[in-house]
Amino acid sequence: MFVNTEKDYVVATYLVHGHYNFYKKAQEIAVGLTVGTWTDLPQVRKEQMIPHLGKVIEVKSLNNKSDEIPKALLKIGYPIVNMNPDIPSILTTVFGKLSMDGQIKLMDLQLPDSLLTEFPGPRFGIDGIRRMIGVHNRPLLMSIFKQCIGLPLHELEKEYHNQVDGQVDLVKDDEIFFRDDYAPALKRIAAFEKYNQQQQENTGKRVLYGVNLTGPVTQLVEKAKQFSKAGASCLLLNVVPYGFDVLHRIAADPDVNVPIIAHPAFTGSFYPSPYYGLSAPLLIGKLMRLSGADIVLFPSPYGSVAMPKEEALNIANLLQSPNSIHRSAFPTPSAGIHPGLVPTIIRDFGDNIIINAGGGIHGHPQGTTAGGKAFMDVIQATISGQTLAQAADNSAELRSAIDKWGAL
Amino acid sequence: MFVNTEKDYVVATYLVHGHYNFYKKAQEIAVGLTVGTWTDLPQVRKEQMIPHLGKVIEVKSLNNKSDEIPKALLKIGYPIVNMNPDIPSILTTVFGKLSMDGQIKLMDLQLPDSLLTEFPGPRFGIDGIRRMIGVHNRPLLMSIFKQCIGLPLHELEKEYHNQVDGQVDLVKDDEIFFRDDYAPALKRIAAFEKYNQQQQENTGKRVLYGVNLTGPVTQLVEKAKQFSKAGASCLLLNVVPYGFDVLHRIAADPDVNVPIIAHPAFTGSFYPSPYYGLSAPLLIGKLMRLSGADIVLFPSPYGSVAMPKEEALNIANLLQSPNSIHRSAFPTPSAGIHPGLVPTIIRDFGDNIIINAGGGIHGHPQGTTAGGKAFMDVIQATISGQTLAQAADNSAELRSAIDKWGAL
Ligand SMILES: [Mg+2]
Ligand SMILES: [Mg+2]
Repeated sequence: MFVNTEKDYVVATYLVHGHYNFYKKAQEIAVGLTVGTWTDLPQVRKEQMIPHLGKVIEVKSLNNKSDEIPKALLKIGYPIVNMNPDIPSILTTVFGKLSMDGQIKLMDLQLPDSLLTEFPGPRFGIDGIRRMIGVHNRPLLMSIFKQCIGLPLHELEKEYHNQVDGQVDLVKDDEIFFRDDYAPALKRIAAFEKYNQQQQENTGKRVLYGVNLTGPVTQLVEKAKQFSKAGASCLLLNVVPYGFDVLHRIAADPDVNVPIIAHPAFTGSFYPSPYYGLSAPLLIGKLMRLSGADIVLFPSPYGSVAMPKEEALNIANLLQSPNSIHRSAFPTPSAGIHPGLVPTIIRDFGDNIIINAGGGIHGHPQGTTAGGKAFMDVIQATISGQTLAQAADNSAELRSAIDKWGAL
Repeated sequence: MFVNTEKDYVVATYLVHGHYNFYKKAQEIAVGLTVGTWTDLPQVRKEQMIPHLGKVIEVKSLNNKSDEIPKALLKIGYPIVNMNPDIPSILTTVFGKLSMDGQIKLMDLQLPDSLLTEFPGPRFGIDGIRRMIGVHNRPLLMSIFKQCIGLPLHELEKEYHNQVDGQVDLVKDDEIFFRDDYAPALKRIAAFEKYNQQQQENTGKRVLYGVNLTGPVTQLVEKAKQFSKAGASCLLLNVVPYGFDVLHRIAADPDVNVPIIAHPAFTGSFYPSPYYGLSAPLLIGKLMRLSGADIVLFPSPYGSVAMPKEEALNIANLLQSPNSIHRSAFPTPSAGIHPGLVPTIIRDFGDNIIINAGGGIHGHPQGTTAGGKAFMDVIQATISGQTLAQAADNSAELRSAIDKWGAL
């Protein structure tokens, strides 16, 4: 969002509302969250503390009508020598106590290269996943199981086949899938990856299956390794409920040889308020990529669970933008996606994304497989420059989908 | 907050703002977050899914003026068979996707006894900590290091002695203390616990030292065991940045034989908005106790980092209230506490609490040790029925503190 020119500091940008002397407020934060006090310290202690002292980098009062609550952006630098190279220590330092101190929202964090290199970033990233799947010239298509809870393996298997037969590139578990007694993860991996292999032999294209990683945090890295060893092609993680550091440790483990899909479950507890919490681009764009997500889901600007378009584009940009340290991650605008939206999605987000649908595939009038095909047809047509109308002329499945859900 | 009469369900209470048909909205949530769809399912699938289906328990429109946005409390039951017995799976189920769905705040969660028993709760709790310290008739007194970052062990040791000499019952690290290269945790434990032992030989009272537990989440349980084995008397954890499940696993580990102080760092990202996030009583009262915190800090209603009094009292009540499954945890209203506030704190919160101060101890005109004594004098006096004025007549240290900070 902003450029960090401070090589020994983590720079936090806050939006503060309130009747403050904003410069004084910024000074209090910079001192209070680092060395505690400053002016009263004896000179010798000051010298000892200088490397640990925070500093005010910018205070920008935001124009506002006189009847509004005053607001400002504060940029404060925190010495990296105060922190461990992990998200919990950074968040505690820059927004631990401070999160409870009035109307203040953490908008952005900039880490210097020396700290960025301590985070794994995506192991596969956009290029790696494209290579795995063997598709380089179009958005990928991901399908979500309509339902997972309570279904036995053979029923999930049937649903898996229906999805893969619709030409999707990836299939993921529903994020609400914890008790899988009827169809344990290792059995799903065995069954679905076997089908993926058959599919690859038939079509030459590899499909990835994102298996939901759940359980005690103390077991998640081991489980991820176990799944990877058992032939899983992709993992799904509800990152925020488990914690960013869990993603970090899984992504950094050399024995976890599969890409990771980050689900944004629970992130809505943080980002929607203009006064409190963390900005969506920081939370879902920056911290997910930093911690090692290869594929990141976030609310699309189109569906019922919607996010303002500018914010969603900002997330996508933070995930994709070239960076000398970390690979880029696949933006996956989700929720409320149906085939008639595809030209708009590609116009808005470009073609280096994953198009992700649940209801928009399973709810197709001719069923799940037709639903997948409708999506793939419109994706291919859009990429080759056809209009939606032209595409629908050549695809009965797409036509049906547009008749049901319309277009944008 | 409310009573759960549903023995097979986790009951979530949401505050929703918006122009909804609230009953329909509740139905959509109950179905959407459990089995996905209902009305269109064939009868045989319905029978299969009934144990997994959520249910609407109550929809309560809240009185409001006609020019306000309509709001309602929705209570929805989620079958426990859909979840693992851990906070990440519960939060993902009841507030994963839903957190991103408009103006909705998770106010409360009720777990049935069968699920509550799967959570550790405090290992020591109020009674256990009182037994360790040997003090049963008054609030305990905790002191926070004024500063930890950048100080060598011998300086921290001096500060530790100053605090203990002021008669405090517990001393805790600052929560912003990650890079402890100059004074590693194991060395602090060795030095401070040795002083605690001397102190106990002299006065008969044991002091607890809360050492900050930091590092990769994959190492925290091991580290907690290591600290416990090395003689630590208490642990400090920034619970939310690391994740509730980390606290759960530490508290549940039989080899971690020390109480845990939960710091509320980062919780302000969730609770202050009336429209989004989680309520403070749920987050800091219920989930902390459930996950195993023995001592829970939260913003007092008095200081600069303040919380509305009703909310703070609600947290205290949730931590203390008798419960056949879990021990009670020590409420510790924090921030901006000075000796002149003590009668008010005890009047508001009762005497089964910990009084916690940093600046209110170290900023005493005669220094840290006098600061501790001022607090202990006013605690003892208040408990024995004296007024603040009477107490100040008998304690020069208290008199100085009141002269500096006033009284409430
Ligand atoms: Mg889902
Ligand atoms: Mg502190």
